[in-house]
Amino acid sequence: MLSASTPDPPYYAVIFTNIHTGIDVDAYEAAAERMERLAAEQPGFRGVESARGADGLGITVSYWDSEEAIAAWKAQVDHRQAQADGQDRWYQHYVTRVAKVERAYRFPAP
Amino acid sequence: MLSASTPDPPYYAVIFTNIHTGIDVDAYEAAAERMERLAAEQPGFRGVESARGADGLGITVSYWDSEEAIAAWKAQVDHRQAQADGQDRWYQHYVTRVAKVERAYRFPAP
Repeated sequence: MLSASTPDPPYYAVIFTNIHTGIDVDAYEAAAERMERLAAEQPGFRGVESARGADGLGITVSYWDSEEAIAAWKAQVDHRQAQADGQDRWYQHYVTRVAKVERAYRFPAP
Repeated sequence: MLSASTPDPPYYAVIFTNIHTGIDVDAYEAAAERMERLAAEQPGFRGVESARGADGLGITVSYWDSEEAIAAWKAQVDHRQAQADGQDRWYQHYVTRVAKVERAYRFPAP
């Protein structure tokens, strides 16, 4: 099963695509798991899905009730430290996109 | 480098998260590559990024200029056949979300 049980649209998605440096992979994975647990405790959190392919491209999509919920998570203090570590060590390159989900289709149909 | 060179927002993202059946993996991968090439020829296409993790969760995000471009791609005849094959054989479960990208941040800054 996919892990994010999102509500009927509209809601928000944060699409985080990245290329890892390959530095400190174990510390990175521990921090990423910690961030997922912390995110799940935030108000307005609706789920997260993450994949990294053999070519090093990672995609994490998190789902939120509102832009306010996203802004609060962006400013959360432990998350700010992880963002700084990400720029210092873990990511060669990333793009964060904030998007409003307007429609969703599921298979099998619910 | 990340492959999608998207414009300044707003633009659209199609977030496709899926769990593969494990059936016909070689045929699936060939069809997926063919669909990415076909998508790239569509008007309004702005890029695609895809990752599949060891746990079987796949995430593909494609980027488009407009909802009209997404609708045209959804209706494209070879893509419709691939969607049918996906439901018949390849995907246990998927969610397609159509979202309007409102903001984007890059690292390193452009």
